[in-house]
Amino acid sequence: MEDWKAYVEDLGKAARRASAQLATLDGAAKVRVLRHIADAIRKQKSALIEANGKDIAAAQQADLAPALVERLKLNDKRIESMAEGVEQIAGQTDPVGQILEGYVRPNGLRIQKLRVPIGVVLFFYESRPNVTSDAAALCLKSGNAIILRGGKEAFHSNRAIVGIIGTALKEAAIDPAAVQLVESTDRALVPALLKLDRYIDLVIPRGGESLIRAVIKESTIPVLKHFTGNCHIYIDAATGQMEQKVRQICVNAKTSYPGGAVCNAVEHLLFHKQAAPRLLAKVCEDLAAKGVEIRGDERTGALYPQAKPATDADWDTEYLSFVVGIKVVDSLDEAVAHINEHGSRHTDAILTEDIAAAHSFVLRVDSASVIVNASTRFADGGEYGLGAEIGISTDKLHARGPMGASDLTTYKWVVTGDGQVR
Amino acid sequence: MEDWKAYVEDLGKAARRASAQLATLDGAAKVRVLRHIADAIRKQKSALIEANGKDIAAAQQADLAPALVERLKLNDKRIESMAEGVEQIAGQTDPVGQILEGYVRPNGLRIQKLRVPIGVVLFFYESRPNVTSDAAALCLKSGNAIILRGGKEAFHSNRAIVGIIGTALKEAAIDPAAVQLVESTDRALVPALLKLDRYIDLVIPRGGESLIRAVIKESTIPVLKHFTGNCHIYIDAATGQMEQKVRQICVNAKTSYPGGAVCNAVEHLLFHKQAAPRLLAKVCEDLAAKGVEIRGDERTGALYPQAKPATDADWDTEYLSFVVGIKVVDSLDEAVAHINEHGSRHTDAILTEDIAAAHSFVLRVDSASVIVNASTRFADGGEYGLGAEIGISTDKLHARGPMGASDLTTYKWVVTGDGQVR
Repeated sequence: MEDWKAYVEDLGKAARRASAQLATLDGAAKVRVLRHIADAIRKQKSALIEANGKDIAAAQQADLAPALVERLKLNDKRIESMAEGVEQIAGQTDPVGQILEGYVRPNGLRIQKLRVPIGVVLFFYESRPNVTSDAAALCLKSGNAIILRGGKEAFHSNRAIVGIIGTALKEAAIDPAAVQLVESTDRALVPALLKLDRYIDLVIPRGGESLIRAVIKESTIPVLKHFTGNCHIYIDAATGQMEQKVRQICVNAKTSYPGGAVCNAVEHLLFHKQAAPRLLAKVCEDLAAKGVEIRGDERTGALYPQAKPATDADWDTEYLSFVVGIKVVDSLDEAVAHINEHGSRHTDAILTEDIAAAHSFVLRVDSASVIVNASTRFADGGEYGLGAEIGISTDKLHARGPMGASDLTTYKWVVTGDGQVR
Repeated sequence: MEDWKAYVEDLGKAARRASAQLATLDGAAKVRVLRHIADAIRKQKSALIEANGKDIAAAQQADLAPALVERLKLNDKRIESMAEGVEQIAGQTDPVGQILEGYVRPNGLRIQKLRVPIGVVLFFYESRPNVTSDAAALCLKSGNAIILRGGKEAFHSNRAIVGIIGTALKEAAIDPAAVQLVESTDRALVPALLKLDRYIDLVIPRGGESLIRAVIKESTIPVLKHFTGNCHIYIDAATGQMEQKVRQICVNAKTSYPGGAVCNAVEHLLFHKQAAPRLLAKVCEDLAAKGVEIRGDERTGALYPQAKPATDADWDTEYLSFVVGIKVVDSLDEAVAHINEHGSRHTDAILTEDIAAAHSFVLRVDSASVIVNASTRFADGGEYGLGAEIGISTDKLHARGPMGASDLTTYKWVVTGDGQVR
């Protein structure tokens, strides 16, 4: 444990030192090094595939589920797509240096809010190796140093990727400590990492709920959470002319991602009692045809007897699989109250032809993304046009919903005078 | 303890319920109720002075320092100024409902970032009773419910102020739980309060460092810290034509607030070795003439022998009194490194005629406010034109530096489609 303390302290110090250099790099230098990283990823393809092979072999030996092994795998196509991801981030507008506000006070003081990097980011994530290059590129673009703590399944792949990035940084005369991987997957070092508030400015945990809870409990560094997505679609009374759209959106929101294992998939459908007789059974049939298990309240069972009865626990559950919970509600008010009580403030949608209902839902549902007449699956950095995302914040502070490069910045007040005193 | 748990749970639930109403209030209704509160404060002047009398009597009995008793005191003038503070906040632009960004995606989805209230704020603060009405008014203006936990010295005054606000809210048909005071100053209930992450979205502790550390340790709710202000002024080599300005700014930054007991007072002066022979002794004489104790490094002692020798601990100290630490540095780089190592990221200034030095200092000093050629004392919500402030954040996330009403908001993504699926 004492060893870990010294090790993580060194990581933190080195990251802090690198962040001072990154904060003063001009935009062109950042674009150049990101393109250089993309090229290096392509050139080192065989080394990456070799390192990845060790992870795959270990995963198969450990009897990991085939779907998880598949997520872990690097091949020509995935490596090309990693390189393209880095190039895409390189091409984005540089958020650093933007003047967010600027004005002159009556005493002549010129006041500006200048967008600057946050400093040092500590990022926890799980198995897909492309997240490593995406996160590193987003942090470099926004002028931050990053300490990466990936899943143990992808350890060799991550080490190879970070090695390539480090070499590219050195060749560009940038401190390679700008992108560091925690070189151990021992859980014992995590508490020590989370106490480095002297060196680290922000922790982003992206993973299972137990990981996130543990991080919040241990951390003296501010945390941006990426919690569960217990997402809802409310089908309003005013849906008389939109049967096809309702059916398509519900099926898309539940089933368009393989296995439904994604945070913006819908987990619960709420039908207004006037819409339910028209639409509930049809939507259930569409979903059942895709292999979705349906759990419903009593009124759902009356309209679609094949539904399994839902229990109280269902309403608070993010299934992350082909299961959906369905409830018939008396009013928009009941739907809003249900979502604010049982939802996870991630993404919730209303399907309606009524402008007043849409307005009321948007104003009153307290979620990061509130969607009118479209699939919840759009709640995503790419779909919102942010380029790559480092996570989807379910917090309300700093950044909410999909987070891109500009969400990895803060501002400083720059005040320029000519001798003013107060 | 179990009693506190139920009590604070009720506070949290009621605040959450009130916040749902506040989020949908239109701007005019908020202006009306704030003006009504200002009127009520004026009308209830004698009741306020009577309640305040109990606090004053208790403070005198407890032998509180006369300066602290003075801060606690309400009189006609201070009550009028409380009412004016609320009116001023009423007159500010409403931050809620602003569209921060808005665009259409290629698939026709209309995407907006809509500014909305955060929800429920828990606010810890100390003795001045006007902070109670300021904080309540800022939260109402920004559509948030607030739970106030004031210092025990001001308990009766705070209860009277919150009582007046509650009556005014009721008369306007607004849930009085929008502004609640914790009706006990028992420290034992604090940990229970800080676990109410289901109901409270943000904790702002404003007070001593030990309070803030305790809050960070206990809280499962995100915290915006208002830490110490170990502020610096660096006097650059290029100050040949600005002797008067340097002297005035240094004296103003140290002594313009009574006793120097304010977070934006300067604590340390760093003189470039080329400026020191010209300016150091003169600045020290000006400060000494105001009663400031001077502690310096060796090179300071050589130029101003009356200086006491500074110890290593001095550089990390926020004196909050008429003491200043002085160091001679070899370069701008050394000044920047010293500030980033020993400062508290609150406010730091450079005095220089050299545009390149100013630019480099602004970019590299990692503080909430970076000031060129003016007093550090300007780092203040009022001076920056924000109207009242709820605190000065020394955090880098969400809000940095002086925080006004718009810093008590977040945003939601509002996505409007016409049947789009992904």
